[in-house]
Amino acid sequence: MLNFISGGVCAAQGFRAAGIHVGVKTHAAWKKDVALIVSDVDCAAAAVFTKNVVKAAPIHVDKAHLAGGKARAIIANSGNANACAPHGEEYAQRMCAAAAKAIGCGAEDVLVSSTGVIGQTLNVQVIEDGVPALYAALERSDEASDAAAHAIMTTDMAKKEVAVETTVGGKIVRMGGIAKGSGMIHPNMGTMLCFLTTDCAISPEMIKTALLETVGVSFNRISVDGDTSTNDSCIVLANGLAGNPCITEKGPDYDAFLEALQALCVELAKRMASDGEGAKHLITCTVKGAKDVTQAETVAKSVISSSLMKAAIFGADANWGRVLCAMGYSGADFDPEKVDVHFASAAGDIAVCEKGRGLDFDEAKAKTILTEHDVEINITMGEGGAACTCWGCDLTYDYVKINGDYRT
Amino acid sequence: MLNFISGGVCAAQGFRAAGIHVGVKTHAAWKKDVALIVSDVDCAAAAVFTKNVVKAAPIHVDKAHLAGGKARAIIANSGNANACAPHGEEYAQRMCAAAAKAIGCGAEDVLVSSTGVIGQTLNVQVIEDGVPALYAALERSDEASDAAAHAIMTTDMAKKEVAVETTVGGKIVRMGGIAKGSGMIHPNMGTMLCFLTTDCAISPEMIKTALLETVGVSFNRISVDGDTSTNDSCIVLANGLAGNPCITEKGPDYDAFLEALQALCVELAKRMASDGEGAKHLITCTVKGAKDVTQAETVAKSVISSSLMKAAIFGADANWGRVLCAMGYSGADFDPEKVDVHFASAAGDIAVCEKGRGLDFDEAKAKTILTEHDVEINITMGEGGAACTCWGCDLTYDYVKINGDYRT
Repeated sequence: MLNFISGGVCAAQGFRAAGIHVGVKTHAAWKKDVALIVSDVDCAAAAVFTKNVVKAAPIHVDKAHLAGGKARAIIANSGNANACAPHGEEYAQRMCAAAAKAIGCGAEDVLVSSTGVIGQTLNVQVIEDGVPALYAALERSDEASDAAAHAIMTTDMAKKEVAVETTVGGKIVRMGGIAKGSGMIHPNMGTMLCFLTTDCAISPEMIKTALLETVGVSFNRISVDGDTSTNDSCIVLANGLAGNPCITEKGPDYDAFLEALQALCVELAKRMASDGEGAKHLITCTVKGAKDVTQAETVAKSVISSSLMKAAIFGADANWGRVLCAMGYSGADFDPEKVDVHFASAAGDIAVCEKGRGLDFDEAKAKTILTEHDVEINITMGEGGAACTCWGCDLTYDYVKINGDYRT
Repeated sequence: MLNFISGGVCAAQGFRAAGIHVGVKTHAAWKKDVALIVSDVDCAAAAVFTKNVVKAAPIHVDKAHLAGGKARAIIANSGNANACAPHGEEYAQRMCAAAAKAIGCGAEDVLVSSTGVIGQTLNVQVIEDGVPALYAALERSDEASDAAAHAIMTTDMAKKEVAVETTVGGKIVRMGGIAKGSGMIHPNMGTMLCFLTTDCAISPEMIKTALLETVGVSFNRISVDGDTSTNDSCIVLANGLAGNPCITEKGPDYDAFLEALQALCVELAKRMASDGEGAKHLITCTVKGAKDVTQAETVAKSVISSSLMKAAIFGADANWGRVLCAMGYSGADFDPEKVDVHFASAAGDIAVCEKGRGLDFDEAKAKTILTEHDVEINITMGEGGAACTCWGCDLTYDYVKINGDYRT
């Protein structure tokens, strides 16, 4: 029995969080810029990082700290990516050390993330000076998770915070997450940070497996702008306080845990796509009738990534030719003459293409459908029985505005 | 001795051209929408087409007509792509037949191209009705090439027409081209049409080889928006009237021909990038010090394709972090700590990144440099001795505007 609940990263037992302003973001003193998430006890920990060859300093540090598969805390800042910048790893280490000192654990038990501008020296001093106040602010509450969620935002317009509750091995297990990500979002971990906490008892090996199985069907199925960042990180901490028999292998308990983790992360991913820089629409592209999931995913990703399709949705223009075009250059091999396309939303459903040919359709009805915030592109390929859903957003004036002058 | 000359597709001996309005574009009677290019004698002919799985009908027809490696003429329309539309191949055949009847050749000697909206039935009747007037308008003149160049434009702001003159086998050889392409432009033949004519004597085999060697270093090195279209076609006709010994193998004559063809197509490609939908800047990205050309090209293409980098250039923002980021997710493997980046233009040159780390640079000077129309991103990788240049444009409000409501 899977339920969405409140509490974000504090939903699970034994997790406290905080988010405050220390001065990394210099232009807005009211904007929180450092977050801390701490478990009362050691956690099994796993993470997935960007595949970009250019990796931010915190990622190198985290990889070392995760060697033992455990952690106690995450410290993260916004306003500076600590990537391609002087003293990167040294400063990332200093962030861990400052948090560890306050918590009373080893620096290697702390994970670190940064997000913001690339290539500028991180003001690590203000973070170190701020850690005592950050630690003092730790709480297990909705407000504390909310503060942490705000502290990792950059151009995000909306906070992303989700939590779910399920039953594993006869015990109530809770898990929650906060995420940031608005630009540079693309399959293979776009610029996103996501911190997940759970009180489930699970081994480091199995939490790693579950995270990999989850990222592939959630964060790797969204795209905002095709740019994959230097800082992407998705970290999960599991502290075992739910008291379930520890999950050490695949089976019903693992399946229940995985189902909840995937529900959590799909929801966070959709919120990221919906909050894509400048976005006015969440676009859900579902491909059915594909030969296999890989084909369905290849096609759906290509459609949600097409600038022309994205601009058409911004204009509420039912330009399905761009959908076929994006399918065609996706790299998937298929017969265009078997493809059907529908547009849909809360305002209705309209068939626009059948067997690869345009239908005469009611343009006014199509416009009404595409004017809704949440729009769907539903494709049937006629090749087999596999399906996949990916999420994206439209391309708008505001995307250009936000990114035309981000640094200043 | 390679010289740029006037005349476009009429620069070479024995080629006539025309462009008129027949009514495919219904909303603007002053806009030309059908072009015809005719050689006085049979030509060796070759073409490169889109790799999109969804191919417009004219491409299927052209592939059949090119089986013998020869052609006499090209007929092309704008305003409708004749892709994913009813009766596609039948109507493409009818365009060829109408032109062939006027010229007095076989329908299989005529090649056909279309560009415009996908998925709507082509009004082939107005084209057939217009062919006599189109044929009557044929001339060998600057004005005639200009008319043909205009007749294939869709959202293009600028006509693309280039011609060059060189010496092959002791004879003056001329070649020229017209092209269209503004949106859906991406490596692997974005939505572009390009028609090239030359009076060089060259075999069908060698013209095909030369065209493939040319497209790879010209049109496949530009990107506007990452969308590869259903209609891309680059066609070359060589009628042999220059009187040079026919090129039938590689050697000095082939090299001279190839050099001229590449110069011609690189110039046309740059004009396409410069006229990218909504573009305010031509961006030239040159990568040096790469391990090999493939690495250099992979990196340069990724940089010119990054939405974030393109939006930064629109904002004249020297956000070199996005350049490194795009290099990093290009798929090329390299050491970021050896990378240097400069921005340059007619207004100067500024180093912004050295050995993968940001430099303190004069922001005002950088802004001045990036305010020029033609801007350069110059990257040195420190991996080897190979280099490559790719071209793109910035991402602007107007791109969104043009594509948010293209069909109506």
